Amino acid sequence: MEPREQAIVEESLDPTDWKEIETLGHRMVDDLIYYLESVRERPVWQKMPEPTRQALKEPLPLDPQGPEKAYEDFLRHVLPYPTGNIHPRFWGWVMGTGSAVGMLSELLAAGMNSNVVGFDQAATAVEQQVLGWLREMLCFPPGSSGLLVGGGSMANVVGLAVARNAMAGFDLRFDGLAAGPRMTLYASVETHSSMRKAVELLGLGSRSLRLVPVGKDRTVDVEALAALIAADRHAGMRPIAVIGNAGAVNSGAIDDLERLADLCERERIWLHVDGAIGAPAMLSPRLRPALRGMERADSLALDLHKWLYMPYDIGCVLVRSEEAHRGAFASSAAYLAPTSGGLSGIAFTFSDYGPQLSRSFRALKAWMCLKAYGVHKYARLIEQNVEQARHLAGLVEQSSELELLAPAPLNIVCFRFVAPDLDEAGLNALNERILVELQESGAAVPSSTVLDGRFCLRVAITNHRTRRDDLELLVREVVRLGREGMKS
Amino acid sequence: MEPREQAIVEESLDPTDWKEIETLGHRMVDDLIYYLESVRERPVWQKMPEPTRQALKEPLPLDPQGPEKAYEDFLRHVLPYPTGNIHPRFWGWVMGTGSAVGMLSELLAAGMNSNVVGFDQAATAVEQQVLGWLREMLCFPPGSSGLLVGGGSMANVVGLAVARNAMAGFDLRFDGLAAGPRMTLYASVETHSSMRKAVELLGLGSRSLRLVPVGKDRTVDVEALAALIAADRHAGMRPIAVIGNAGAVNSGAIDDLERLADLCERERIWLHVDGAIGAPAMLSPRLRPALRGMERADSLALDLHKWLYMPYDIGCVLVRSEEAHRGAFASSAAYLAPTSGGLSGIAFTFSDYGPQLSRSFRALKAWMCLKAYGVHKYARLIEQNVEQARHLAGLVEQSSELELLAPAPLNIVCFRFVAPDLDEAGLNALNERILVELQESGAAVPSSTVLDGRFCLRVAITNHRTRRDDLELLVREVVRLGREGMKS
Repeated sequence: MEPREQAIVEESLDPTDWKEIETLGHRMVDDLIYYLESVRERPVWQKMPEPTRQALKEPLPLDPQGPEKAYEDFLRHVLPYPTGNIHPRFWGWVMGTGSAVGMLSELLAAGMNSNVVGFDQAATAVEQQVLGWLREMLCFPPGSSGLLVGGGSMANVVGLAVARNAMAGFDLRFDGLAAGPRMTLYASVETHSSMRKAVELLGLGSRSLRLVPVGKDRTVDVEALAALIAADRHAGMRPIAVIGNAGAVNSGAIDDLERLADLCERERIWLHVDGAIGAPAMLSPRLRPALRGMERADSLALDLHKWLYMPYDIGCVLVRSEEAHRGAFASSAAYLAPTSGGLSGIAFTFSDYGPQLSRSFRALKAWMCLKAYGVHKYARLIEQNVEQARHLAGLVEQSSELELLAPAPLNIVCFRFVAPDLDEAGLNALNERILVELQESGAAVPSSTVLDGRFCLRVAITNHRTRRDDLELLVREVVRLGREGMKS
Repeated sequence: MEPREQAIVEESLDPTDWKEIETLGHRMVDDLIYYLESVRERPVWQKMPEPTRQALKEPLPLDPQGPEKAYEDFLRHVLPYPTGNIHPRFWGWVMGTGSAVGMLSELLAAGMNSNVVGFDQAATAVEQQVLGWLREMLCFPPGSSGLLVGGGSMANVVGLAVARNAMAGFDLRFDGLAAGPRMTLYASVETHSSMRKAVELLGLGSRSLRLVPVGKDRTVDVEALAALIAADRHAGMRPIAVIGNAGAVNSGAIDDLERLADLCERERIWLHVDGAIGAPAMLSPRLRPALRGMERADSLALDLHKWLYMPYDIGCVLVRSEEAHRGAFASSAAYLAPTSGGLSGIAFTFSDYGPQLSRSFRALKAWMCLKAYGVHKYARLIEQNVEQARHLAGLVEQSSELELLAPAPLNIVCFRFVAPDLDEAGLNALNERILVELQESGAAVPSSTVLDGRFCLRVAITNHRTRRDDLELLVREVVRLGREGMKS
């Protein structure tokens, strides 16, 4: 060995004074816990002022500013301008609320900084446990496989990739799609846009995603679907997958999954269920019947950062056939080969189930939250949100100035302000103004959609902080803003 | 309005006593800061005992255990069994170390729980700022676009998806690959396995990924590559992309990116650079020349959770042509339509640049770390790691009992213990035993690979906590274990 060279000074990112960073950590905990505790007192959303926007355009920091300065800037320029989804009156799109335990779990995960490749480590066992729990919560068969992913979009990509490869009838991983016939997939017109993006990413082409009409209840028309499959087969295409909605994005409509499962069984087609919105309703004995058939899916996508209220990001895909799942993703490489012991002494790697190799320890927040709060609590909160949606739908129906624009079978309510003097274009413009005003005043954040040409206020309640009186406030505000808008 | 029903008791995940959860948060900060401070005193890795493994197989928690109990279980069963990558003597695969500021940033991000869809909010501005900083750090042109993703694998998927769609010559998003000719991609045999998986996921078929031989320095043979492209064109295929390695996984070899850029320009082929391992070396004026040409790539994938030492997960893709980038991913839907003000008053969404819609605020940890530590510090640490790799390579070369198995141009060193009495099979077996023993004793965690049939110990130093004497300890241990292994 050469003697240590005296001149070499080695440095690291570790602080010289650990007490200082610990003190800063305490301050952060205090500030963030207070931020959660006091959220009801703040506006749901507020626009960033121009000086903040400018302050966030900072030149590349070449020299250290130190943790305290970075945190001061966070407090001043970032923390006051959140999405708003942790607020009790946020019901835009479909976003979860997060929780104190979820927040603290992320601290723990980032401290351990486990890379959940697989391997012989606690994080692997925790993710496997969480997947087992989710399987049980969703009534999926014990032998099925799964993976935690960044969200519903990625869960759909993984589910459809497995479907594509399993149903191709040739070695698609090796030969690619250029070698094969046109494969077609089927979904209702109410299906989320991420499905089209998944089909595009997988190289299948969006023209292969056949959109099927819906009935008045906005669920897929199963007769029309069957006819379309037959016609496509007749035209020489290869129907490979039906996508069922367990809670469609616009209105929460739940396709008749039992009939879809029957159809897919008969036709030998893969059934993928997009449960990003509604799958957690399976936890409630009262709501479960509406999802009957979901447990028969070949693959199921869901989001834990939506209706399970966990912090971003965490989604999950479950696949009935582990063999098909591994068939789409398992691979090997010399630098990943298992060894006869040590860290890679266990050959299991999560990358055999999805596109990622390095993976964060997102399982920990699910593990901590499920343990701390318990599944029964989640079931009650989900039922509470559905009851709140019914309450809101009831208020809308009782008011002559409001109109319900779609059935609200789950936790999504689409409605608008109406006035006899206005035509459809006028109503659309007025309701958009109401929406913008609701958000900009900080009173509430619904989002919007368009149903049959009608602009609607869309309230999706995946919020454990919401109370009925928050929805009553929303109704009062919409009526007030509508009346005011009529005058102006 | 109907009168409030008295019987309804609404609940939430919020604690009844915020002080309690704040106290728990303080405890967690103390414990985790101490966990970081004391990491050097612990084994790099240790096997989970069987009772721990059993304890982690817990029935679905139906009833609440409370945050304290969940945390106790974490302390007992999870925290002692990490991957090990935060330890100064962890050099397995290519994993980052994390940092105190990175850890605390995740607490902040999870507290805000921003959904970084885009929209008018601070998190959008922060991610745009981080992307701008990364562009500058990597000498990418100002007009290029980018996206933070879960890691290098996903960055490669996005980069290659853009390449595929931009180079197809037809409307691939709509028509799919079944409509077109076979498109081919080119990469050296040293390219990471995630590239093959990306090509498979995109439906191109792994047979379309043409593997090109490397020279003695393990960089791609550019002559052979050019010949292969010409032959494929002649055979009626459509060459669309060359993948260059800015740090190949086995040995850190850096392809001649300047020559690849010239070739791609001449051939009108997309240049994608996989910089998951080496791209951050661009920060160092001393190392930058080796990466010359990287800034000419059409797309570049990199990992911030590797050599920028940020906690999992955070990777990034940069794309030279924003138009091509959006062309592959931009989409629209009624429920995502921008409004004339409010939260969606800004039409910008990150989902126009990748497959995900809901996205976590992973930008925050990058923003906090870059501000707190400063880019110059990162440059010095990267240089320090390269110098440490040179130091290790020097020690290996000085020892008659050790053999360097590949040039070590960057931060990866492949070597083995040798003994004149053993044949290749014997050396392979012995070195695997050395590796397992190193890991199981907790002394150090290198990983392994196989080069030209030879099992090697592979040391990848993306670790800000490593000191030279840690590597000296490694060398002593390898020699000791090798000699012992010879006797047994």
